[in-house]
Amino acid sequence: MTNDTSNTMWGGRFAAGPDAIMEAINASIGFDKRMAAQDIAGSRAHAAMLAATGIVQTSDADAIREGLLTILSEIESGKFAFSTALEDIHMNVEARLTDLIGAPAGRLHTARSRNDQVATDFKLWVRDQLDASEQGLLQLIDALLGQADAGADWVMPGFTHLQTAQPVTWGHHMMAYVEMFGRDLSRVRDARVRMNESPLGAAALAGTSFPIDRQMTAQALGFDRPAANSLDAVSDRDFALEFLGAASICAMHLSRLAEELVIWSSAQFRFVSLSDRFSTGSSIMPQKKNPDAAELIRAKVGRIFGANTALMMVMKGLPLTYSKDMQEDKEQVFDAADNLMLALAAMEGMVRDMTANRENLAAAAGSGFSTATDLADWLVRVLGLPFREAHHITGALVAMAEKAGCDLPDLSLEQMKSAHAGITDDVFTVLGVENSINSRVSYGGTAPAQVRAQIARWKETLG
Amino acid sequence: MTNDTSNTMWGGRFAAGPDAIMEAINASIGFDKRMAAQDIAGSRAHAAMLAATGIVQTSDADAIREGLLTILSEIESGKFAFSTALEDIHMNVEARLTDLIGAPAGRLHTARSRNDQVATDFKLWVRDQLDASEQGLLQLIDALLGQADAGADWVMPGFTHLQTAQPVTWGHHMMAYVEMFGRDLSRVRDARVRMNESPLGAAALAGTSFPIDRQMTAQALGFDRPAANSLDAVSDRDFALEFLGAASICAMHLSRLAEELVIWSSAQFRFVSLSDRFSTGSSIMPQKKNPDAAELIRAKVGRIFGANTALMMVMKGLPLTYSKDMQEDKEQVFDAADNLMLALAAMEGMVRDMTANRENLAAAAGSGFSTATDLADWLVRVLGLPFREAHHITGALVAMAEKAGCDLPDLSLEQMKSAHAGITDDVFTVLGVENSINSRVSYGGTAPAQVRAQIARWKETLG
Amino acid sequence: MTNDTSNTMWGGRFAAGPDAIMEAINASIGFDKRMAAQDIAGSRAHAAMLAATGIVQTSDADAIREGLLTILSEIESGKFAFSTALEDIHMNVEARLTDLIGAPAGRLHTARSRNDQVATDFKLWVRDQLDASEQGLLQLIDALLGQADAGADWVMPGFTHLQTAQPVTWGHHMMAYVEMFGRDLSRVRDARVRMNESPLGAAALAGTSFPIDRQMTAQALGFDRPAANSLDAVSDRDFALEFLGAASICAMHLSRLAEELVIWSSAQFRFVSLSDRFSTGSSIMPQKKNPDAAELIRAKVGRIFGANTALMMVMKGLPLTYSKDMQEDKEQVFDAADNLMLALAAMEGMVRDMTANRENLAAAAGSGFSTATDLADWLVRVLGLPFREAHHITGALVAMAEKAGCDLPDLSLEQMKSAHAGITDDVFTVLGVENSINSRVSYGGTAPAQVRAQIARWKETLG
Amino acid sequence: MTNDTSNTMWGGRFAAGPDAIMEAINASIGFDKRMAAQDIAGSRAHAAMLAATGIVQTSDADAIREGLLTILSEIESGKFAFSTALEDIHMNVEARLTDLIGAPAGRLHTARSRNDQVATDFKLWVRDQLDASEQGLLQLIDALLGQADAGADWVMPGFTHLQTAQPVTWGHHMMAYVEMFGRDLSRVRDARVRMNESPLGAAALAGTSFPIDRQMTAQALGFDRPAANSLDAVSDRDFALEFLGAASICAMHLSRLAEELVIWSSAQFRFVSLSDRFSTGSSIMPQKKNPDAAELIRAKVGRIFGANTALMMVMKGLPLTYSKDMQEDKEQVFDAADNLMLALAAMEGMVRDMTANRENLAAAAGSGFSTATDLADWLVRVLGLPFREAHHITGALVAMAEKAGCDLPDLSLEQMKSAHAGITDDVFTVLGVENSINSRVSYGGTAPAQVRAQIARWKETLG
Repeated sequence: MTNDTSNTMWGGRFAAGPDAIMEAINASIGFDKRMAAQDIAGSRAHAAMLAATGIVQTSDADAIREGLLTILSEIESGKFAFSTALEDIHMNVEARLTDLIGAPAGRLHTARSRNDQVATDFKLWVRDQLDASEQGLLQLIDALLGQADAGADWVMPGFTHLQTAQPVTWGHHMMAYVEMFGRDLSRVRDARVRMNESPLGAAALAGTSFPIDRQMTAQALGFDRPAANSLDAVSDRDFALEFLGAASICAMHLSRLAEELVIWSSAQFRFVSLSDRFSTGSSIMPQKKNPDAAELIRAKVGRIFGANTALMMVMKGLPLTYSKDMQEDKEQVFDAADNLMLALAAMEGMVRDMTANRENLAAAAGSGFSTATDLADWLVRVLGLPFREAHHITGALVAMAEKAGCDLPDLSLEQMKSAHAGITDDVFTVLGVENSINSRVSYGGTAPAQVRAQIARWKETLG
Repeated sequence: MTNDTSNTMWGGRFAAGPDAIMEAINASIGFDKRMAAQDIAGSRAHAAMLAATGIVQTSDADAIREGLLTILSEIESGKFAFSTALEDIHMNVEARLTDLIGAPAGRLHTARSRNDQVATDFKLWVRDQLDASEQGLLQLIDALLGQADAGADWVMPGFTHLQTAQPVTWGHHMMAYVEMFGRDLSRVRDARVRMNESPLGAAALAGTSFPIDRQMTAQALGFDRPAANSLDAVSDRDFALEFLGAASICAMHLSRLAEELVIWSSAQFRFVSLSDRFSTGSSIMPQKKNPDAAELIRAKVGRIFGANTALMMVMKGLPLTYSKDMQEDKEQVFDAADNLMLALAAMEGMVRDMTANRENLAAAAGSGFSTATDLADWLVRVLGLPFREAHHITGALVAMAEKAGCDLPDLSLEQMKSAHAGITDDVFTVLGVENSINSRVSYGGTAPAQVRAQIARWKETLG
Repeated sequence: MTNDTSNTMWGGRFAAGPDAIMEAINASIGFDKRMAAQDIAGSRAHAAMLAATGIVQTSDADAIREGLLTILSEIESGKFAFSTALEDIHMNVEARLTDLIGAPAGRLHTARSRNDQVATDFKLWVRDQLDASEQGLLQLIDALLGQADAGADWVMPGFTHLQTAQPVTWGHHMMAYVEMFGRDLSRVRDARVRMNESPLGAAALAGTSFPIDRQMTAQALGFDRPAANSLDAVSDRDFALEFLGAASICAMHLSRLAEELVIWSSAQFRFVSLSDRFSTGSSIMPQKKNPDAAELIRAKVGRIFGANTALMMVMKGLPLTYSKDMQEDKEQVFDAADNLMLALAAMEGMVRDMTANRENLAAAAGSGFSTATDLADWLVRVLGLPFREAHHITGALVAMAEKAGCDLPDLSLEQMKSAHAGITDDVFTVLGVENSINSRVSYGGTAPAQVRAQIARWKETLG
Repeated sequence: MTNDTSNTMWGGRFAAGPDAIMEAINASIGFDKRMAAQDIAGSRAHAAMLAATGIVQTSDADAIREGLLTILSEIESGKFAFSTALEDIHMNVEARLTDLIGAPAGRLHTARSRNDQVATDFKLWVRDQLDASEQGLLQLIDALLGQADAGADWVMPGFTHLQTAQPVTWGHHMMAYVEMFGRDLSRVRDARVRMNESPLGAAALAGTSFPIDRQMTAQALGFDRPAANSLDAVSDRDFALEFLGAASICAMHLSRLAEELVIWSSAQFRFVSLSDRFSTGSSIMPQKKNPDAAELIRAKVGRIFGANTALMMVMKGLPLTYSKDMQEDKEQVFDAADNLMLALAAMEGMVRDMTANRENLAAAAGSGFSTATDLADWLVRVLGLPFREAHHITGALVAMAEKAGCDLPDLSLEQMKSAHAGITDDVFTVLGVENSINSRVSYGGTAPAQVRAQIARWKETLG
């Protein structure tokens, strides 16, 4: 804890001198081995194309492709010995391939460069994350639809400024998040379409004089087409930034729902009970249930947008084409992707498990004269009063109810008429929480019928 | 400069006490008046719908619509007196409408709330920026295509790590940016499609009991459909975040091109001459030409991504639905949009005006044995040597040339043969910068024919 | 709303062509006029030094200094006509000085450059903001001390995870924020000491051959010393970044307090009543009080940290010395400073005005067996039980109380003894909320005596 | 690469269901084991205090302290078996302690909570990083002083806008970075002083009723004093944010120097040769030397400021006191600290190893009439001409020299006189690069004497 310790620590870190420092800052094998499957898929596609175009002999290509499969199974089974001296996943795989098949391994890198290879690997990895995000979103939406379906007509307060504004339904509130995550889904799909171009064949940066077939490798790897400019292909990281951007907005949505779950779990709200699986208790305070998972999810937007910030700043002002700065891209994206998937899965689990406390929701929905605007709207709609006058009369009736210690529906018709003679019995059809929510039948409104229609639409859309 | 001054400053700022502070922090008219045209368009569509559905009388709606047009022209001509006491653009317009047409003005806000109104206004404003971004991008791409067309076969160094790697063409380099800005274009268009849903009719948050026609207002305002959940409609700011995200990536692309222009304008590079319009000189150092516009553009990514950070942080953890925090959205988006448009226009102007210094580009392209990889590829391709051996022989020949003080094409065939007996005259067809670029005919490669094909494809795509 | 409109908008913005675009992106007078007072102070100090060192004649320097005072009063009274063609505040002032005093105005810029001038102006401006931040923090701390003083012994729940954990006091909670804002104060003061070096005299970048006296100008402007390296002096923006960093952490603290005020103002909590001055009501829902100011303050951390992000990204990777990118510094700092001062003032006002709802706080503090840990600690402390056993017994007693529908202090001694025979009457001295808080007398603990000691310490520290 | 793969991947990640997800999102042992030494130091200090105050028996405390030492050596030697089921480092250590010493282990947690324990551990860890940063900065400054000393009078171009502006010296340029890193040093030291308060004894949040001695534990752990408010002590993360803020500014400085090294290493500049240890070459292009380390360092500001963004966003709007969100703090700080130390060490190594190419620097310094301002200043200083007239005459002479294809010092006195009759031989004393730099003797200027004075001042300051 003293300077001595620190000195040691500093010294300990870098005692081995400049060469150790350079290895520490330069090597990427510590993280890019996560792209092993993508690297091998890319190399196998490349080898097949080299054979098909006659650039290498079919027998060599076959040996390469077989050897790569062997390496993949070694990696998947944990038997592969990664070497830091070989710096990155590409060299580790190539060196092992030479061990396995000898000379033909040296043909694999024909008409290819580390630059287009790493761009291809990373794109394939990010594309997998876009697909995984899609799955995670679909499952979270499914969980929300389940809650919405069950509670399409359960009343709860609709908040603005965390103040009760108007009654809404539980289903309606859940469906608001379905819309949000639905947009995330759409963003993820658009990003996938846009990024699905193959860098392979861009070579170092200028393309190549070998008669390669980029369409063939693109197709083999599931790309829609080869990238159209080789300089751009090796210096582009838009696909990573767009993933991080979409992930950040999704994480922001998660943070809003998580915040609500934390507030709703408080002793003061008690709107919802989280399952024991996603909360932690206290050995001596049995009623205390900490919404740990919700809090951790709420925090993830920081981590994911932090990664977005990092990569945006890395890319700022880089001249074309490849600069080593770009090696900083992977760890940011890996960490953001892992945390997004984890947050989506945890939120899905929490949503499926949680129990709405219907009595508390209903009681809160009805407090605070929350249907005052329904009364005012009735005065406008039925009696044709101007907006301002309707509001004035409503204010008087709320004051009357407050003085009487009751709610608006508890006032008698006579009391109502004392504020405006034209009021009729019909007014009671809009007062009260149930009447209020049932009346809001405008498209997208909170009426249970509307909510159910939206649930049905989403179910149909998602198949 | 002393504490006294500071005290005064502090005091001066807030001398008027709490009410002045609240007005200062709360009022939005200082910035949201920029949405006047959108606010009036929204109100006019709403009034027309209220009449069509019989909620208000046609004569009232007509008066409202006329009055709003008058107000629009007052604002456009600078005659409108904005009042801070009226807090925001909505109240300013409504108050003026009452002045102009009296009682019927009070009918306008029927079946609407400030919440859906402000969401609609802001969405329309952002949509305009997406359209303006599209125009700005198209014009910048056009300028780049012009440069690419002119210099499809001008050679220049292709860089990695800011070190000369292989020769490429000016046109190829310009087209790399066309690909980048083309992706920006695609992002902007996707964002527009996704956000084009109308919040109008969501009312305060729960929808309304008035028989409104949200399809009608949506159509009148150019939206594809009404937003499907009223809670989401008033609490969603995804459209602003997605605009900022797309703008940030675009600004990052601009920063890369700007960085290149700054470096290329240095006395050491002299790859390009910027026009006097986009640079500033020195009265006594005539050769000095500061690339001011390029530097300012380079900086814009900070400003625009700063706005993205700001709004992302504002939205983090906000419970549904509307919270006043969200009022912080507009200034960020306004500033980012203004600066993106400015940066796009300035870059377009710079690109159109700039002159490539062909001699310097060509000289730089040919230095540093930049066609060594072409030689190695020839050894692989023609002689069938393995990659590693080809590299070894090439290294020996480069060393020979370096010792002789010449470049690779200047070596004699005999000298070549001393490194590998199989080398033939044909090797000279790939050495030299011109041969090198002409040989890289793989799809997306730097060969002028490839570059011209890409130019043609883009011109056709853009119409 | 159509593409036509957008085209017009785009065209309208930049119709005047490249020159208008360059003026729009290049001119800074639109914002840097806020540094007029600093610019004039700097020029007056420079002129006095030029005379004292004999570089210009005293009569010329006197004319310059008088003329500058005239300009300052013109600006302060709003009579000064700023010209965009003159680009920035420096040229505007110099041009007007020439109008006023003729030829001697041309002597002012001797041994100075725009580069050291703008660095000096901006440093003086930022220093004023550091001073203003100090004042704002002192006043907010004073308001918090007032609340703490009044409620040093008012009980309220202490939360972790927004779940009641243990009782604490209102004063203790307020004092937690005093610690936070106290650290902000310390950060601001450290930043002021560090940045208080004068750039004036660095000239363009290399210093000057004129026999200037940098100590003299530094002293005249309240700087501690001249900056020691002229290259650094004109390319340094650390002072702005450090202000933004300190402002961001302060704004984060404000966001936490603001969040608490929003939650505490909800109908479910009702821990606090905000004054009408800092909230807005509803014409028809009298109990609804929206905590607008708190929400706006909560959002400011986004805006201020957004500015920090922007400037950090602008400065990334800039070669020495001055680059035009750095002109993007001012608007970020201006906006962040304005919003920090506003947020501090608004929070101070809200804190002074707010009323703690003591009954609600006390009721919430006592619920949920919040003194169970006190019981467990008593078992350890008095009976010498191991921690784990004490927890086990406490759990049993809580279960007993829960079953009986009472709280822990309501159990009889016999009931207590049934769980552990050694329990004595003394246990009741720690049960109950009042006993709990009074017992926590460890340094910095929640016992009122401790809280009052901390209040006293702070009052003494602040004088 | 298909959806099937993605499904598998998604499923594979979370196949074990909700419990596995919760463990994945909740457990911290994967990263907080890095705080093992700090955790054990904190616990040992706590145990000693518990004995000294009589809260536990000395024999128990001794057993605890011994057992903890054993655990520390187990961890340091890699023999300790960390368990994910035990969630975090604290539980892992406590469980092992129970294994080792039995029942007395249960006394360790008396008068302490996980909340103050984790705050203490993390503060100690961050404090070590502040110390390590100080060491790293001192060593980098030492390397820069070495370069400055060697090249105090080597001329090179001083740039603005990456355009040659005036000649400066290599030493002067190196010393500009010494000033920057010197401010970083000062920031790090201020941060250490401010954060050095002990959270230990804050317990869960409210302090404790045990008669603990917080001064004693504070002193034992090297803290200056105990933190004064227990609520703040467990919810404060300012120390982490301030470290990240200081680290970000430092990383920004590193990015500027790294950018210069990248540009200076280009074939066009060749101002500097980096050692082979910090660059990578090409097997076939011997002159190519990629400045990999410089590029990686340039990128680190993104990573470190990304961490700053992440934690700032996590902390935004968190109510007091501890929320689980705050568990996201450690990985950000760990990663930022590791990368800062690595970047400082790599930069130190690069600076020590690099070789300035004096001829290229000198040639560039003298080109472009870089001493034109010296001529203008001479006209003002010696002939007493007004600034504007001096500039006019200088412009004429530069034009004359340009036409003659020579530089200013090559003009004859007659030619000089043709522009202004008053010019004498003395003018040649300021023309030419050497004269220019020698003349700039103002404090902090580029004259070698000034540079050497600053080197001496820094050496004395640093001891």
